[in-house]
Amino acid sequence: MSSIFGKIFTVSTWGESHGKAIGAVVDGCPPGFAISEEYIQTFLDRRKPGQNALTTQRKESDIVKILSGVFEGKTTGTPISMIVENSDHHSEDYEHIKDWYRPGHADEAYDSKYGFRDYRGGGRSSARETIGRVAAGSIARKILNEKCKTEFNAWLALDESAIETARKNGDSIGGIINLNIKNPPKNLGEPIFDRTEALLAMAMMSIPATRGFEIGKGFEAAKMTGSEHNKFADGTYGGITSGEDIFCRIAFKPTPSILQLQKAKNKNGEVGEISVKGRHDPCVALRAPVIVESMAALVLMDLWLQDRAI
Amino acid sequence: MSSIFGKIFTVSTWGESHGKAIGAVVDGCPPGFAISEEYIQTFLDRRKPGQNALTTQRKESDIVKILSGVFEGKTTGTPISMIVENSDHHSEDYEHIKDWYRPGHADEAYDSKYGFRDYRGGGRSSARETIGRVAAGSIARKILNEKCKTEFNAWLALDESAIETARKNGDSIGGIINLNIKNPPKNLGEPIFDRTEALLAMAMMSIPATRGFEIGKGFEAAKMTGSEHNKFADGTYGGITSGEDIFCRIAFKPTPSILQLQKAKNKNGEVGEISVKGRHDPCVALRAPVIVESMAALVLMDLWLQDRAI
Amino acid sequence: MSSIFGKIFTVSTWGESHGKAIGAVVDGCPPGFAISEEYIQTFLDRRKPGQNALTTQRKESDIVKILSGVFEGKTTGTPISMIVENSDHHSEDYEHIKDWYRPGHADEAYDSKYGFRDYRGGGRSSARETIGRVAAGSIARKILNEKCKTEFNAWLALDESAIETARKNGDSIGGIINLNIKNPPKNLGEPIFDRTEALLAMAMMSIPATRGFEIGKGFEAAKMTGSEHNKFADGTYGGITSGEDIFCRIAFKPTPSILQLQKAKNKNGEVGEISVKGRHDPCVALRAPVIVESMAALVLMDLWLQDRAI
Amino acid sequence: MSSIFGKIFTVSTWGESHGKAIGAVVDGCPPGFAISEEYIQTFLDRRKPGQNALTTQRKESDIVKILSGVFEGKTTGTPISMIVENSDHHSEDYEHIKDWYRPGHADEAYDSKYGFRDYRGGGRSSARETIGRVAAGSIARKILNEKCKTEFNAWLALDESAIETARKNGDSIGGIINLNIKNPPKNLGEPIFDRTEALLAMAMMSIPATRGFEIGKGFEAAKMTGSEHNKFADGTYGGITSGEDIFCRIAFKPTPSILQLQKAKNKNGEVGEISVKGRHDPCVALRAPVIVESMAALVLMDLWLQDRAI
Repeated sequence: MSSIFGKIFTVSTWGESHGKAIGAVVDGCPPGFAISEEYIQTFLDRRKPGQNALTTQRKESDIVKILSGVFEGKTTGTPISMIVENSDHHSEDYEHIKDWYRPGHADEAYDSKYGFRDYRGGGRSSARETIGRVAAGSIARKILNEKCKTEFNAWLALDESAIETARKNGDSIGGIINLNIKNPPKNLGEPIFDRTEALLAMAMMSIPATRGFEIGKGFEAAKMTGSEHNKFADGTYGGITSGEDIFCRIAFKPTPSILQLQKAKNKNGEVGEISVKGRHDPCVALRAPVIVESMAALVLMDLWLQDRAI
Repeated sequence: MSSIFGKIFTVSTWGESHGKAIGAVVDGCPPGFAISEEYIQTFLDRRKPGQNALTTQRKESDIVKILSGVFEGKTTGTPISMIVENSDHHSEDYEHIKDWYRPGHADEAYDSKYGFRDYRGGGRSSARETIGRVAAGSIARKILNEKCKTEFNAWLALDESAIETARKNGDSIGGIINLNIKNPPKNLGEPIFDRTEALLAMAMMSIPATRGFEIGKGFEAAKMTGSEHNKFADGTYGGITSGEDIFCRIAFKPTPSILQLQKAKNKNGEVGEISVKGRHDPCVALRAPVIVESMAALVLMDLWLQDRAI
Repeated sequence: MSSIFGKIFTVSTWGESHGKAIGAVVDGCPPGFAISEEYIQTFLDRRKPGQNALTTQRKESDIVKILSGVFEGKTTGTPISMIVENSDHHSEDYEHIKDWYRPGHADEAYDSKYGFRDYRGGGRSSARETIGRVAAGSIARKILNEKCKTEFNAWLALDESAIETARKNGDSIGGIINLNIKNPPKNLGEPIFDRTEALLAMAMMSIPATRGFEIGKGFEAAKMTGSEHNKFADGTYGGITSGEDIFCRIAFKPTPSILQLQKAKNKNGEVGEISVKGRHDPCVALRAPVIVESMAALVLMDLWLQDRAI
Repeated sequence: MSSIFGKIFTVSTWGESHGKAIGAVVDGCPPGFAISEEYIQTFLDRRKPGQNALTTQRKESDIVKILSGVFEGKTTGTPISMIVENSDHHSEDYEHIKDWYRPGHADEAYDSKYGFRDYRGGGRSSARETIGRVAAGSIARKILNEKCKTEFNAWLALDESAIETARKNGDSIGGIINLNIKNPPKNLGEPIFDRTEALLAMAMMSIPATRGFEIGKGFEAAKMTGSEHNKFADGTYGGITSGEDIFCRIAFKPTPSILQLQKAKNKNGEVGEISVKGRHDPCVALRAPVIVESMAALVLMDLWLQDRAI
């Protein structure tokens, strides 16, 4: 259960969907940067549900508290512990399916791997885990912005009608998030395994429901000639950033939780039909842009510190 | 310069394109498995140039020697050091462009990051670095095959005419590699950051010239509904393998080394025109299938050992 | 600021002496083990101050709460987040020396390294940080005890009169902790760098105020002949446990915080005289046995999981 | 079998005593430093046997070759692969004891952990493994010396008569190595787990045959009062270097290989008497000073890079 990300600027996330709280510990953060709960909150607010008509109606207040690592408003270089209490439990929503494996979910996988699981709302595999990533990412992006003017902007190429249709049908739909990194620091990325694109790919593909990653021209590059592609500002060369903008695309599969009746298995291998009630987004990518930005910030922050070392 | 991959089954690669040798050290390999130089050689032979009319004519013999970690034909649990000498140097091919940054290459990035570089054939950023990965991967796949009957098959969706056209034009072209993993061990992958798909993505995007990665339905999943996608055998759920086959696609950009005259910069910021002579594949993906398979084997091997630990 | 310990069974501690709370996140804990707040509390109670006439009178309640990773009384394999609120602040005790570097403390070192610091009670360098280690260690020792009957017993070779004399003089004194590990699992330890004794040494020397470590015959071994020493049950051979009991000794320097007037420097390099008031143990080793046991348990737990992997 | 040391400046050692070669790969070395085979050789020469009447007569030439990572005499930032061929095999010396577990050695431990082992000269557990550490350490100390004027000096408090007596008796004897680090860089060490003294302890206790470690006043500190100890220049405070000299002592047990007949077990649990012939030092610490210096240099180098990152 590796819940630790990064080499120097490390993030350790913890917490289950319907447990007492969700949180993250950031270790290796440089000292002297101004960080406040209010600042972090602005990013969590972008992630939380109930933001618009299209997202789930679960109304978490999702208020972050900083428990350590900040003194008199500034990072001290010590671990920054952040916590968000889980306030809006509807554990009973999951009682009716506690013995069933929701199709497309990690339920069966967790049972198989660990022997049992916290069945309430996906437990650890819930998208609520990403709260910790967003909180940590908000620190990383602030430092990169102050030091290098780096900006992270992600957006969903939104097809509102397809989402609305999916919702009406008790169904869901996938989506693609675009990410633009403006003014990334130059010289980031370690050649060979820890290339910038490799770590960005890992970071993005560690977000629940992701199925694809592209950087630069992505799959289109496969059809281009060298004379064409060489003219393109690719952002990374040999895994190292050039300082040019970086552009990525991330594919999300449709939310597997749907109201429609689906065939499902249970622990005993029996087959039945279930409807996953809960309160779920018809498109999981709706709330993902800030998560994508946060993971990108974590990658670049860690590489930035590594590059300073040599 | 992180040239170490993996957490328990670790691979450390070393060597420059035109240095004395190229190699890899595998640490954390379980004891008691039969490994021979002949066995490893079969995979290196699939990677080496000069295999067919379409690949570069550089004729490396690329003979692997095992220097440690194998005793009386079996792995001992100690580090396995493997070495391949560089025999077919044409360093003089690079003299004429030693002051120029080849477009689309890591030349400028290395100079910027490290202050200078081994300009001969890309030095460390050369695709020859992947020799170490293939040697290491051959050990991983043998163990997984013996223990779990896992098989790794990658292939290039080959458009011979496009490649031939590119060659005639002194140009190059990209390509897409398909990867099928048959009988992957069940329960692999650590939830949250070290998901199977995240580590596969990282591994693939650490191969030179890659620009995109897909698993399962990939970008197509973004357009599917949950009711459709849930019926699909996706291979991983919540980052954990189900034992079902895993299917990936990896996009490679065109070889940036082309004979055609291109605009290029040098260290002093001057602009000129260069032709990259050397001996280069018109399609870098031609020799990549065995590299893709090797990286996948390294990922699954490491996760397999991690899963055994808990 | 590396606050993460371990490779598979990892512990991430956080929190300052006079901040809101202190805590730890344990990642990589195997699923299915019974763990409760009451159980963990018994170990924290052994560590907390005010236990007897000889220890500091700071009366922390030090009540641990589990926030995640335990469901229906059992570990789930997900990160276990534990928190202890800081209730008994006497921050004002430190106001009078906030500009002074306490001799023998990390005050000047933190200021030099990080540019500034949380001066209240040592901040992160406070011995209160070890609360997280003890909480995490209590989980490790329970699993090792259930699976292998391993027991950890540490004790201070207590010279009450020397401690009492030191206290009366407004002074402090050092101490030596003995550690006996009964029934350690066999075959633990990775040859070369991650030897059992190397990791035990690192773990012990990471406890504040430690200055020496011995295993087996320790420094006495340096005077023995091979024919004598070979007869001795040493517990580890080539870094690997034999299953025999392991015996260690750890030297603690005297608490640097003393009431006696001492020469001290401040940020401006001026020299003055200070008395460190606060509430400090005359012998820092008094409360250290449970910390020593906890660190030993963390080392063996991590090695145990690593050994299962191969 | 973790043969990798360090976080940023990493060393991966490989090779068995009687295999084809021994080596190390250094990754994460900053670029632009002058390194030559001749320079590294001077340190290996201090380590190799046959140096004086007191050490083993095994006459390895132990000539190091650099295979990568150095271009035109300077480090390039890429992995530095170094190799030393094993030339003076006397494998037959070990034939007569191949079925016996040498007392005090790792023979039984390796068989128990891995199922079998390379029995020739200890295989991987041979002190020859330290060749790689010395080669890697020589690079670290050069950089630290150029940048910070740091010097590493270790020496054995030599009792020649005790060693001579041991040799005559077909016996061996232990020893204590003193280490002085002059001008260590200031601010090194990460608080909490990666303290300077914790990493030095780990590094030293990973050298074969070590049983004890002290820093500063070591075990003597346990008997001192705070008012005395606070006056002492301790070198590290809260795990962080102050720039003052650092002093350590490392205890080595006697070489377990002795000519005297000893009781021994074999694989079948039978008990017999063996004499360990080979060519062994009567005091293993005789050749250890350069190893101790090398490990200290590796620790400080890695911490120095980590400190630059923040």
